[in-house]
Amino acid sequence: MVTPSDAEFFLAIDVGGTKLAAARVDGDGVVHRRGQVPTAPSAAGHGDELWRTLLALVDDVCAGGTPLGVGVGCGGPMRWPVGAVSPLNLPAWRDYPLRDRLCARFPNREVRVANDAIAMTIGEHWRGAGRGAAGLLGIVVSTGVGGGLVLDGRVVAGVTGNAGHIGHVVVDPDGPACGCGGRGCLEAIARGPVLVQWAIDQGWRPADGALADGRTLLAGARAGDPVCAAAFERAGTALGIAIGSAAHLLELDVVAVGGGLSAAGEFLLGPARAAFAEHVRMSFAAGCRIVEAGLGVDAGLIGAAAFVAVGDRYWPAGAD
Amino acid sequence: MVTPSDAEFFLAIDVGGTKLAAARVDGDGVVHRRGQVPTAPSAAGHGDELWRTLLALVDDVCAGGTPLGVGVGCGGPMRWPVGAVSPLNLPAWRDYPLRDRLCARFPNREVRVANDAIAMTIGEHWRGAGRGAAGLLGIVVSTGVGGGLVLDGRVVAGVTGNAGHIGHVVVDPDGPACGCGGRGCLEAIARGPVLVQWAIDQGWRPADGALADGRTLLAGARAGDPVCAAAFERAGTALGIAIGSAAHLLELDVVAVGGGLSAAGEFLLGPARAAFAEHVRMSFAAGCRIVEAGLGVDAGLIGAAAFVAVGDRYWPAGAD
Repeated sequence: MVTPSDAEFFLAIDVGGTKLAAARVDGDGVVHRRGQVPTAPSAAGHGDELWRTLLALVDDVCAGGTPLGVGVGCGGPMRWPVGAVSPLNLPAWRDYPLRDRLCARFPNREVRVANDAIAMTIGEHWRGAGRGAAGLLGIVVSTGVGGGLVLDGRVVAGVTGNAGHIGHVVVDPDGPACGCGGRGCLEAIARGPVLVQWAIDQGWRPADGALADGRTLLAGARAGDPVCAAAFERAGTALGIAIGSAAHLLELDVVAVGGGLSAAGEFLLGPARAAFAEHVRMSFAAGCRIVEAGLGVDAGLIGAAAFVAVGDRYWPAGAD
Repeated sequence: MVTPSDAEFFLAIDVGGTKLAAARVDGDGVVHRRGQVPTAPSAAGHGDELWRTLLALVDDVCAGGTPLGVGVGCGGPMRWPVGAVSPLNLPAWRDYPLRDRLCARFPNREVRVANDAIAMTIGEHWRGAGRGAAGLLGIVVSTGVGGGLVLDGRVVAGVTGNAGHIGHVVVDPDGPACGCGGRGCLEAIARGPVLVQWAIDQGWRPADGALADGRTLLAGARAGDPVCAAAFERAGTALGIAIGSAAHLLELDVVAVGGGLSAAGEFLLGPARAAFAEHVRMSFAAGCRIVEAGLGVDAGLIGAAAFVAVGDRYWPAGAD
């Protein structure tokens, strides 16, 4: 059977720390064929080994067709827009010419590579919780805290593609040291490993055999453990303060929170909304809605497809 | 003598709390004829009385010519882009139809009204310290703390024209109450009257007969009074933290600081740069330059002219 996706599709790629994902996405942002492989076996090896893993995945997803264009969301940092990537959690790739490799594989096709949190944000704006927002901040709360921005209906990426770093908005000037070299950043308080460590420092221990990770911490919160709930509350409060600063600065309509820790739902977003309400009273900012991202793990793929499928809105003018 | 400004000019208007200013500005952003009047006599009276004061000023500036377009920077809040203004420090105007009045006075001419801090920022981007910046934050430190944004080379105003409110970025979540209803905002720490009050609380008294205001405080700092210098240091530190958050979020190149308190120069900007350097280490943000605004009191007029003289870059698409 020939579906529209066999004839006309965009190839979307999501390069994460633990997996590579690829999909066919049509011009309406619908995912038609999706595949993924773990990165672990080749992540520490030679860069071209990881590339061959990705290429096999891509060939499988594209089998029988040729994409109209290729969009990639990839963990940072990277040189942008040239698309030479150095994802923190993929040591095999350091200044790896991912975009060049994809251009060689798909000649005469547009290939665009940007930060994965920007891809997530654009996905949410195009097809998810941020649809129609004039000012959208997308946030990924996970091992780190990343973000992306759509302002006045257009993506704002910055000259080197680094706009959207909500994780390094300062929420407590005397707060803990951050991996960036600064102090008191949102990420230093709200990233997953910090939550877990904070709970352990307060005496929490995971049940027999369970890993001390975000998932176990959430299970504890759901089971009524007050330390687990307090860990999410602490992170959510910091999140709400940072969102408040951003809403004042940017007149945001919607903040869509995704990433692994967003699975905590109201344990995280309830305190975030409370802190936001305490700090934000002026009408132009106070109406901003803080919601869970709507597309789950597909947001990054759908946004990556948007780089090439809806390029006028979702790719900065002149950035190729 | 007929100069180019007699033949072709844009009318720029700056509505402040203490004065109305107007000028002829040419297509290159050069001010050719300038006038101003204090607002005090009519500011508390009927709205139309203040309008007649402005009209007399405008007629004087335009005498012998007709502007190609009219741009206005005005204290907020306002309904935007319709240009019905309620400047905090001009009680005579509450939801006053300033843009409508100007449209009636100048039929068939484009009239654009926006926040005065946005006008200042655009002036600095067009002709001042932010020239060529891809990401510019303009800040006005005065009775309040306002701001404006140029990102990816274009003005970002937000749906209601309120983007740029750097004064309400949270710099200390447990800090002092702010006039906005929140807590720990930059403005609650760095606005002029707060600096002066802080110095008084520390035991400072102005010399015989001098007013306890920002100017006297600066004179004290210059004369070596450590309390006066500490007041600017406290404000500058808060400023640097807020700028750090904005630089991370927006990948800024340049921050141009203007407004009355910027006359303090290094007393304010030195501590701001130190706090910024402590909190901002990542290369995409750390290179951001914090500088004094370059156009002084003309920045708002030049930026207002840019609303109509360079409309494609300096006025949001579809905002008329």
